[in-house]
Amino acid sequence: MNEVELIARLTPTLPRNESVVVASGDDCAVLDLGGPEFVLFKTDAVVEGVHFTSDTPPEKIGRKALARCLSDIAAMAGKPNSALVTLALPKNFDPERIDRIYAGLNALASLHGVAIVGGETTKNPGRVLISIALLGTVGKDKCVLRSGAKADDAIFVTGTLGGSIHGWHLDFEPRLREARWLRAHFNIHAMIDLSDGLASDLRHVMKASHVGAELLARAIPIRREAKQVARAESSAKPPLLAALTDGEDFELLFTVTSKDAVPLLDGWKEEFPTLPLSCIGKITAEPGLRLRDKDGVRPLNVHGYTHFEKS
Amino acid sequence: MNEVELIARLTPTLPRNESVVVASGDDCAVLDLGGPEFVLFKTDAVVEGVHFTSDTPPEKIGRKALARCLSDIAAMAGKPNSALVTLALPKNFDPERIDRIYAGLNALASLHGVAIVGGETTKNPGRVLISIALLGTVGKDKCVLRSGAKADDAIFVTGTLGGSIHGWHLDFEPRLREARWLRAHFNIHAMIDLSDGLASDLRHVMKASHVGAELLARAIPIRREAKQVARAESSAKPPLLAALTDGEDFELLFTVTSKDAVPLLDGWKEEFPTLPLSCIGKITAEPGLRLRDKDGVRPLNVHGYTHFEKS
Repeated sequence: MNEVELIARLTPTLPRNESVVVASGDDCAVLDLGGPEFVLFKTDAVVEGVHFTSDTPPEKIGRKALARCLSDIAAMAGKPNSALVTLALPKNFDPERIDRIYAGLNALASLHGVAIVGGETTKNPGRVLISIALLGTVGKDKCVLRSGAKADDAIFVTGTLGGSIHGWHLDFEPRLREARWLRAHFNIHAMIDLSDGLASDLRHVMKASHVGAELLARAIPIRREAKQVARAESSAKPPLLAALTDGEDFELLFTVTSKDAVPLLDGWKEEFPTLPLSCIGKITAEPGLRLRDKDGVRPLNVHGYTHFEKS
Repeated sequence: MNEVELIARLTPTLPRNESVVVASGDDCAVLDLGGPEFVLFKTDAVVEGVHFTSDTPPEKIGRKALARCLSDIAAMAGKPNSALVTLALPKNFDPERIDRIYAGLNALASLHGVAIVGGETTKNPGRVLISIALLGTVGKDKCVLRSGAKADDAIFVTGTLGGSIHGWHLDFEPRLREARWLRAHFNIHAMIDLSDGLASDLRHVMKASHVGAELLARAIPIRREAKQVARAESSAKPPLLAALTDGEDFELLFTVTSKDAVPLLDGWKEEFPTLPLSCIGKITAEPGLRLRDKDGVRPLNVHGYTHFEKS
């Protein structure tokens, strides 16, 4: 049983109440606590040996832990507000290392106006685990879900994809400003952040929206490192496969009606001249994920990284 | 360096923003997100080998993980709203065990109207760790902090204390209804839940309120198990010491002006006839914690359990 199967099994049993707008199944939970905006609520954990190594500079560990959650707030077009930090540490922790974890975390929090309002340290014999709980807000008419994609929508991604393990997974920029700009200027039908890999995350949108999709192979933006590694190592993934499946890109994938595609690209270039934006395909009424390349159209069966596979 | 020293060192460096009413240093963070009530925000983690054992029934692990957070919401006189659950699991996890963790957690959540709105599973090689992130709400004029205790206040505790390890730490009832009743009917000056032990937690109130306290030894309510163990094992803590220092009682400690003490006890007996409420001493202008017993008054130097002591 992997994470997806486990979540599918547990989800119907979870209690609800009248505050819940969106529970599990999107990038964040969405709550109506009676205020002028919805409250976004998200947790995410990074674990030594899984998401970083004992050699990773502590500043980058703290930064990554928070950045992953910020990316989920971005995917709802929200604004992050406050975070709690759970540090689970081996008994022989080094206080200087913890200071450095917080230095990385605090710097990114300050940049995005996020208050760190507490948390706890607890023991976790053997390895460091950092769990972040994040609150954000979003206008009640501005929240973008995974479930709004429509047939013939254009599919866009920000940045470049693949090969994140060669550094980007520690250094990525959560696309908060970009997401709010998109939502302020266009009717974004559906949005998700790319954490599991393009192929997997697009499937999440397809499932939530009850649609299919067709990707255009030559339009998929591939990160330089994914190409370099493929050239240098014969055993490495081909670059396109890396872009489809590597995960931890933390770019935005979103869909808009096709007539918005050109004005959106034009506006984007003016607002974010240094960040690529690519139209990589279209949403289809026909279910399933397909890839179009020079040889025609074929079903795409590769998946991105699925967490927690038993092996 | 222990947890208290570590937090003291980190706290001044944490970023803030204009939403923060209370950051770290109380049972929950308190935020003003522009709604009619304050938002309470709390995380708490339980770890195998620290807060439960591999033999603990999974239902009780899930229940305890949530109950600890609910107790913190109670300490602010708040109402819990929604939770996210982070399950960090060894690779060879047993799906049935996870179902049972959720069964215990869901039952307690339903009882208190708490929605479980998602979370994640992640790997934690070696042991189970459960972190709960909890949101609650509290009327802007109803929130009770640790910092409001005043000289000559009466100090109360609910229930009985000590020996929690013999079962209560898994079965305790978060005092949510009791706390809201208290705040609705009396001007509660300060409140905290007893997690680290009476002596330690009262010191948190004293520090936040810039006061001292005097406890009356014979008034401190001792749990039956703490007395039984002391009788059975000569090496066990004397019962009063257990009540002062054992921790994980998850009862409420609060202070009110002394003239409210008798009406409060009378009203409590009517509302909660089966739950003891004890007046255990008074707040003093003189700093420090003192214990009055048959031999007179002496400084109390024992501490409750301090998390994360290096040894």
